[in-house]
Amino acid sequence: MQNFTFKNPTEILFGRGMIAELGRRVPAHTAVLLLYGGGSIKRNGVYDQVKAALNKHRVIEFGGIEANPLYETCLKALEQVRANQVGFILAVGGGSVLDAAKFIAAAARFEGAEPWDLLRTHGAGIKAALPLGAVLTLPATGSESNGNAVISRQATREKLALTSGAVFPAFSVLDPETTFSLPQKQVRNGVVDAYVHVIEQYLTYPAAAPLQDRFAEAILQTLVEAGPVTLAEPQNYDARAAFMWGATLALNTLIGCGVPQDWSTHMIGHELTAFYGLDHAETLAIVLPGVWKHELERKKAKLEQYGQRVWKVRTATGAIARTEKFFHSLGMPTRLRDYKISAAEAAEKVRARFAERNTVLGEHGDLRPDAVAAILRSRA
Amino acid sequence: MQNFTFKNPTEILFGRGMIAELGRRVPAHTAVLLLYGGGSIKRNGVYDQVKAALNKHRVIEFGGIEANPLYETCLKALEQVRANQVGFILAVGGGSVLDAAKFIAAAARFEGAEPWDLLRTHGAGIKAALPLGAVLTLPATGSESNGNAVISRQATREKLALTSGAVFPAFSVLDPETTFSLPQKQVRNGVVDAYVHVIEQYLTYPAAAPLQDRFAEAILQTLVEAGPVTLAEPQNYDARAAFMWGATLALNTLIGCGVPQDWSTHMIGHELTAFYGLDHAETLAIVLPGVWKHELERKKAKLEQYGQRVWKVRTATGAIARTEKFFHSLGMPTRLRDYKISAAEAAEKVRARFAERNTVLGEHGDLRPDAVAAILRSRA
Repeated sequence: MQNFTFKNPTEILFGRGMIAELGRRVPAHTAVLLLYGGGSIKRNGVYDQVKAALNKHRVIEFGGIEANPLYETCLKALEQVRANQVGFILAVGGGSVLDAAKFIAAAARFEGAEPWDLLRTHGAGIKAALPLGAVLTLPATGSESNGNAVISRQATREKLALTSGAVFPAFSVLDPETTFSLPQKQVRNGVVDAYVHVIEQYLTYPAAAPLQDRFAEAILQTLVEAGPVTLAEPQNYDARAAFMWGATLALNTLIGCGVPQDWSTHMIGHELTAFYGLDHAETLAIVLPGVWKHELERKKAKLEQYGQRVWKVRTATGAIARTEKFFHSLGMPTRLRDYKISAAEAAEKVRARFAERNTVLGEHGDLRPDAVAAILRSRA
Repeated sequence: MQNFTFKNPTEILFGRGMIAELGRRVPAHTAVLLLYGGGSIKRNGVYDQVKAALNKHRVIEFGGIEANPLYETCLKALEQVRANQVGFILAVGGGSVLDAAKFIAAAARFEGAEPWDLLRTHGAGIKAALPLGAVLTLPATGSESNGNAVISRQATREKLALTSGAVFPAFSVLDPETTFSLPQKQVRNGVVDAYVHVIEQYLTYPAAAPLQDRFAEAILQTLVEAGPVTLAEPQNYDARAAFMWGATLALNTLIGCGVPQDWSTHMIGHELTAFYGLDHAETLAIVLPGVWKHELERKKAKLEQYGQRVWKVRTATGAIARTEKFFHSLGMPTRLRDYKISAAEAAEKVRARFAERNTVLGEHGDLRPDAVAAILRSRA
């Protein structure tokens, strides 16, 4: 096991009716920025519950955060924060709204001229942030209980990630009932996103971390069981709850403690979203099998362990096949052709960008732009 | 899944050499009470590492915390805290030193006349506490990452537990190398203690919490594998690390989220320690099989799941037998006769005390003093 530090101060409020606890968690006598996305919270009752819980607070609303939150939109929200002396940001929505809230919270305390610098340094420049909290309505990203955010810049088609201990939510409310009305596509995306979060922290090489391995496998098994049930029975509370708690634990930094990590699939996927506008999870389902096949020999021991423990198959290739089949069973395509994207073109675009940035990926730190291009060509 | 709140702000610093990080974690310009037990830290090098890391702090030392920390001893330490205006308590040792540190930290901010009241109310009266941290040298209790403490009072032979969010350690250093020199008996005790912590949060009845179940099983499997290795090879870093991290996650409150819990074995065991001076883990190994056999029908579904997933046996009785065999393999007795204690006498003493206090145990809240007496008689 490698040395590690672990700290996750976010309070989780889990279950039916827990939104009512908000009023006691948000500091009193503080102006609150209520940040949200496309407005579904106004149709499914969540907005009304939040407003009722905050009836003693001054609330400034800012809607319209995009599925891949834009820097340009965050800057508009930042103007509201400054104009209204906001002291607390409440994100109501999924990972995108949460990510935007984290970036805005850090930007509000940033003293430089250009907040994009916080992303260019991947969060290293964050010294402080406004406190924030969340009401999660879309289980997927784990953003409700970590210090990560991913922001896109429309002007330059860049998509960059930051990590900082300063932007962990003070609390996150997870009420599975708020997810009953989610479109099937978002549920499918959430299951795949959470699944690949676990994989990126697990499927590398044996590292004498048996407990982390078993925790990772526990989340994968839970997603394999609960994912299809929650798609088939949207109002099944138990399946929603298992999926929601699994998605949080997939990326609250616990299972990654003391183990090597690979984030190739995410890094390559971010570029596919930036160039082609695919949903984040759609890119992961395309890229992951390609990374595994390219790295088959070096990942073989863990692929076999994963296959045996999660899928009851013996071989590494069997484990890959079962994973793709699982994605398909959720209605998730795994090929670029499914989106009418030229693999040759995508490979060249991503290769060129990684080459320009000297990006090298993988748990061994040696997956170079040419290898990434080969992986993408294999996903035609 | 039941509703729950989860918050664990303790920072874990895990691995070789991490004691050196202490100096940056303890607030500057603060007098530190260095609390420890019987002095083994002076023989195994831990004391020297801690002193070196705190070379810029004013350190007041207080040794002699007992294996079952005494209220009377804590009051003496409290005098030192007050006399020296201590602002931070650093526990260096195992769960007993940690528990004492938590109680002293809360007592230092208690405004009533008699700090024992904090225990009589099981921590409900704790409004604030001095900040504390730990260097853990004995994996077992999980006290390094929770808000629990158990304190004994010599004068009255009472042993009471408190729980409070105010006494979570700010940080805990877990360096597996500090455990290399532990006596075999303490390792054996630690494995059994951690194992039963998991069991008390897991072995009740099915509650639609598949992920919590699998996390619990993951820790049990890790202890089953790493426990015997760490006894046989005391300097095996990987086995020590897996055991140490497993013992922390066994009782950092994560696996107990949203599920029914039973703490009968602990509650009965505390009385055996109070009356007969047995080690805490020794009492657990005696009581647990008795509780299971008494509650066989009501715990059957989970006993079978546990047997199948952890031991590859099909029946509930097979699971109980394998667990006792595992304890024996660690050199841990499971009968009162092994300590020359009369089961009839122990049963009557514990029954009388629980009757006097109206103590009712178990996940259904209906295990009455007569049932406890029957359980103890069965452990002759």
